[in-house]
Amino acid sequence: MGEKIDVAVLGATGSVGQRFVQLLENHPWFRVAELVASERSAGKSYAEACDWRISDAPPEATARLKVQHHEEPVKSPLVFSSLPGGLAREVETQLASEGKRVFSNARDNRMEADVPLMIPEVNADHADAVRVQQKNRGWSDGFVVANPNCSTIHMVLALKPIWDAVGIEQVLVTTMQAASGAGYPGVSSMDLIDNVVPYIGGEEEKMEAETRKLLGSWNGSAFGNADLAISAQCNRVPVRDGHTETVNLKLGRSASPEEIVEILSSYRAEPQQLDLPSAPKHPIIVRSQADRPQPNLDRNVEHGMASVVGRVRRCPILDIKFVVLGHNTVRGAAGASILNAELFHAKGMLV
Amino acid sequence: MGEKIDVAVLGATGSVGQRFVQLLENHPWFRVAELVASERSAGKSYAEACDWRISDAPPEATARLKVQHHEEPVKSPLVFSSLPGGLAREVETQLASEGKRVFSNARDNRMEADVPLMIPEVNADHADAVRVQQKNRGWSDGFVVANPNCSTIHMVLALKPIWDAVGIEQVLVTTMQAASGAGYPGVSSMDLIDNVVPYIGGEEEKMEAETRKLLGSWNGSAFGNADLAISAQCNRVPVRDGHTETVNLKLGRSASPEEIVEILSSYRAEPQQLDLPSAPKHPIIVRSQADRPQPNLDRNVEHGMASVVGRVRRCPILDIKFVVLGHNTVRGAAGASILNAELFHAKGMLV
Amino acid sequence: MGEKIDVAVLGATGSVGQRFVQLLENHPWFRVAELVASERSAGKSYAEACDWRISDAPPEATARLKVQHHEEPVKSPLVFSSLPGGLAREVETQLASEGKRVFSNARDNRMEADVPLMIPEVNADHADAVRVQQKNRGWSDGFVVANPNCSTIHMVLALKPIWDAVGIEQVLVTTMQAASGAGYPGVSSMDLIDNVVPYIGGEEEKMEAETRKLLGSWNGSAFGNADLAISAQCNRVPVRDGHTETVNLKLGRSASPEEIVEILSSYRAEPQQLDLPSAPKHPIIVRSQADRPQPNLDRNVEHGMASVVGRVRRCPILDIKFVVLGHNTVRGAAGASILNAELFHAKGMLV
Amino acid sequence: MGEKIDVAVLGATGSVGQRFVQLLENHPWFRVAELVASERSAGKSYAEACDWRISDAPPEATARLKVQHHEEPVKSPLVFSSLPGGLAREVETQLASEGKRVFSNARDNRMEADVPLMIPEVNADHADAVRVQQKNRGWSDGFVVANPNCSTIHMVLALKPIWDAVGIEQVLVTTMQAASGAGYPGVSSMDLIDNVVPYIGGEEEKMEAETRKLLGSWNGSAFGNADLAISAQCNRVPVRDGHTETVNLKLGRSASPEEIVEILSSYRAEPQQLDLPSAPKHPIIVRSQADRPQPNLDRNVEHGMASVVGRVRRCPILDIKFVVLGHNTVRGAAGASILNAELFHAKGMLV
Repeated sequence: MGEKIDVAVLGATGSVGQRFVQLLENHPWFRVAELVASERSAGKSYAEACDWRISDAPPEATARLKVQHHEEPVKSPLVFSSLPGGLAREVETQLASEGKRVFSNARDNRMEADVPLMIPEVNADHADAVRVQQKNRGWSDGFVVANPNCSTIHMVLALKPIWDAVGIEQVLVTTMQAASGAGYPGVSSMDLIDNVVPYIGGEEEKMEAETRKLLGSWNGSAFGNADLAISAQCNRVPVRDGHTETVNLKLGRSASPEEIVEILSSYRAEPQQLDLPSAPKHPIIVRSQADRPQPNLDRNVEHGMASVVGRVRRCPILDIKFVVLGHNTVRGAAGASILNAELFHAKGMLV
Repeated sequence: MGEKIDVAVLGATGSVGQRFVQLLENHPWFRVAELVASERSAGKSYAEACDWRISDAPPEATARLKVQHHEEPVKSPLVFSSLPGGLAREVETQLASEGKRVFSNARDNRMEADVPLMIPEVNADHADAVRVQQKNRGWSDGFVVANPNCSTIHMVLALKPIWDAVGIEQVLVTTMQAASGAGYPGVSSMDLIDNVVPYIGGEEEKMEAETRKLLGSWNGSAFGNADLAISAQCNRVPVRDGHTETVNLKLGRSASPEEIVEILSSYRAEPQQLDLPSAPKHPIIVRSQADRPQPNLDRNVEHGMASVVGRVRRCPILDIKFVVLGHNTVRGAAGASILNAELFHAKGMLV
Repeated sequence: MGEKIDVAVLGATGSVGQRFVQLLENHPWFRVAELVASERSAGKSYAEACDWRISDAPPEATARLKVQHHEEPVKSPLVFSSLPGGLAREVETQLASEGKRVFSNARDNRMEADVPLMIPEVNADHADAVRVQQKNRGWSDGFVVANPNCSTIHMVLALKPIWDAVGIEQVLVTTMQAASGAGYPGVSSMDLIDNVVPYIGGEEEKMEAETRKLLGSWNGSAFGNADLAISAQCNRVPVRDGHTETVNLKLGRSASPEEIVEILSSYRAEPQQLDLPSAPKHPIIVRSQADRPQPNLDRNVEHGMASVVGRVRRCPILDIKFVVLGHNTVRGAAGASILNAELFHAKGMLV
Repeated sequence: MGEKIDVAVLGATGSVGQRFVQLLENHPWFRVAELVASERSAGKSYAEACDWRISDAPPEATARLKVQHHEEPVKSPLVFSSLPGGLAREVETQLASEGKRVFSNARDNRMEADVPLMIPEVNADHADAVRVQQKNRGWSDGFVVANPNCSTIHMVLALKPIWDAVGIEQVLVTTMQAASGAGYPGVSSMDLIDNVVPYIGGEEEKMEAETRKLLGSWNGSAFGNADLAISAQCNRVPVRDGHTETVNLKLGRSASPEEIVEILSSYRAEPQQLDLPSAPKHPIIVRSQADRPQPNLDRNVEHGMASVVGRVRRCPILDIKFVVLGHNTVRGAAGASILNAELFHAKGMLV
């Protein structure tokens, strides 16, 4: 693949920003060249600017990089964004207009009519929408590609093979989400010692809207929402990493739990066929033990890039129910953006 | 009410047994006279026999009582049982045959055809079944009355007013249950530090079966199951006390969230009308804050005897969804048995 | 005692402010009349302004009070302060100059040369220092009385009887402190799920300095520091309420663990003799079980106003070691200020 | 090094046994050939017999091995033992008498007069004691080598460089130990949700006795205890892996914190010189941040084989205080035994 592509990470000192830096260490195609953060951090080395919380210390090469501010020009052709919602739209759009390929974990652009919201195993064909995006906006090389919310990704990854094989009409989900999903400092320890918080602002709406776009169509000029109903209840539980979700499905046609297990276990898609560097060999792993998946045991499977399913069984009301779990800041955030970028690169769309 | 009634507590050193002892301290009608436990404890004082885990120390008077073994004769006319499943059926039946009134938190007798499974606010009329039970079994004074499983009680308490007012066709529930529900030592700390266990053996089946009996009918000779479908997914989370449950309902007729809130908030039943000593003034409390109920804040409302509901809103798939929470070893176990006994006493059925 | 005294609570919406409000509900001598907080809260009802975190809801009467801002005049003659450090000194001093009796949990005034730093069971005689304070500062009726830091209080309460009876030369202590000590939101859940933070800014210095003042003398015109060496290591652990501390002591003379237990258990002081409303009957409780005290079991003993000691035994290096535990926001904060005020009232020093 | 040496793991299904299996996967010198466990597990595959709790699943090759019982003959020349105390002495001694080289994490043989208790960075010279052991017991090839308790290892690893360079007279330590140290199920979740348990049976005695043997001498025929006083207070905290310990030291001669940091950071010993496969490059890492080490961030440094020190500063009573942390089931248990075996192999003492 020749020389590595220089990458800028926006929101580099935050929780997801740190995960970008960690996952990009020794990446075969991409190289962290620029770290962008708020004014408070600008000018400091990354090691100084960043309260690193995901291992003992940031990768050495990155630790020495100087953090730059959003208003300084970005030179790298490839940009990963973990900017906070509200700020992201303007910054990402501006960078795309300057020719940057922006892969964003931020919520702002996800539901835009010409921005592909992508999980490479789910809707790789939506990538082409960036051509329309460029045309719409008068951009030559740049574009913005979004990935979904952390709780959406793992659910939809598990829905997709079923959607394809037997159809889905209704999805009822309850989440038990990890603290890291709220960033750092995020949720107070007073709220998560011996407690559950049965509410995460905006999360249920995101799961409901994003799922329809992800499973929907791209007809060459517009996205069409998938025709399925979704109802989400989102909770925060005392877990550091790894979202656990209970899912109930009404299927398009009758299917036994055994058939569903087979459909999930055997699923492979474009990232696996292209052998993308961050792609899990098995995007969905199905556990046979009665009490799995569990965050502490299963969140790091396939380097945190797989969704782990268990307890597939009949639902007395809808048709099928199961539990799905996945790492929320790896496959659920930074890893999702990186896999999107790898897909574009493998398809020759980063040039 | 004159003299207090002597009470024996079976399984007195266990987690629920301890809660019986705590809740019966200073009870206006009942007095703990006998503590029954396994051979290992027999002969010791309660203070010695019991690894008391719910406050700093057991009530002083009870602490000095000598623990007796199941094979020693029980003298008290009233018996509260927190025996483990498997052992309970035989011991409780034997005691009832000897004329004892047994109020049991154990699972063994709950689904028996002539044993009332009761929540006084839900199905006080099932009490009469003990007359048939006595006749069936040839018992003169004794009987067995059961209360439901901890996760069932709080859900059904919240369902009952809706069931009465608008009807319910389907109930989908996901639980996030506290560690104390598994007793002591119960769940290993290795399973609940930074973790969720998406499985509790037998729990989903209990919720599904017990709910139909509780909301069902008693026609003077037999119970009839309520005609509603239930689908439960049960999880253990790192919380000490207090089960949190997300519930989705298909109603018998259309009703707005505001109407449901009004139905729940205004609900009063026989325990409130009879002013039973352990009855909550408001059996169901509805929170208006977006992020409530929470176990740490709401489990002790009304001395742990109420169910606390929040987030009542429309469900895009079924009709209504909400969160319900309650103390699992108070209203969900020992307090449930005690309230049953109080109902029987107030109705003159303990004589 | 006639009419209740009106009380203003400063910092009323914070973690310790909430505890003041809770502990003052139904107080026999004091009545919460004014709630003072930051600009953000001013003008709202207390229920609206305050994110109440210590039970399901604030006391009803207080919930309806309107919160006022620091710059509005305070009318109540008695003031409890839980202001943040930095802000407290100026506000408290100003109020005292206007004639208010200020009992403060803030750190700012604790080490002032004419401010008594008090635990009523430890140094009730320091109360007289307020006369010198008034003279120094030209104040007629007002004064400021401080209580120590939460980790200091429980340790010193356990040291005092030993200090009196056998003398102490050296104190080595390691704390395992609860999250609530840092207020709300305070410590991030990311720092306290599956983790210990071995550092609390300024805490070790406070424990070392405050202990010497508390055990020191008041000679009618100045405080003299106690002649003892202290070395503290302070840690934050995943506990909601209740600080646990391991203590090693070098004594003034030889004493057996049994003698130390007897000295601690039998200790009574002025709050007990005066039967102050918030005084624990037993200020120090000694547990005989091998694995006690534990925060979850022992923090609420004597309504959270006692210190609980256990594992008193010989130290192979110094002389004696033990564990002490206490509730950090009750006896360790708001309850400490209230007990100070009760002492002043009982001595006729609030008039 | 030619062919790999076959290894038997005793207690293979337990918590430390699992860690042995994990750490020996892909080991350059050793190969897991036999898994020994209790009768309940015997005859099953390891995957079936073992409730694997340290990652998603055991290594594939080992998962298929059949578990054998203690009474079946062991064929492998090298044995790692994580047997429970009480059982270990007899089994280990029997195997050694049959010619096996036994490296044990069990407590039973640690303090035996002719059993070396070893940390390769601390007392590699004690290895020779196995020759005397063999002579004493009439064994030809077999022997038993023990490693210390998990809380001892990390403390002593940090003490050793200071002991060598400036001397130590007194050690005062308070531990905050992880749940995994008690195995699985080990400590109840009811004891570690929102709680600290200030007692671990036998742990303080082990720390005190083992440290003196580890820092002591081997004169060719007997061990001599190091002349230093130790006082330990041991606590269990809600952490999954990683023991944190606060240490206070009285030194042999005066030394500044900076000198101590330099002594610790620069320490290298025989495992580093021999470049043993499991040896950390830096056995002791010193953190400069005020709030480190923390279990969640630092326990996996150097693959869990290093001790991490922080907050080195003067002690107002003894001379120096600091915090030390390390992974309790890696360097603190299974990794410790493996490193001992590697040392013996590199010295040609396994032949």
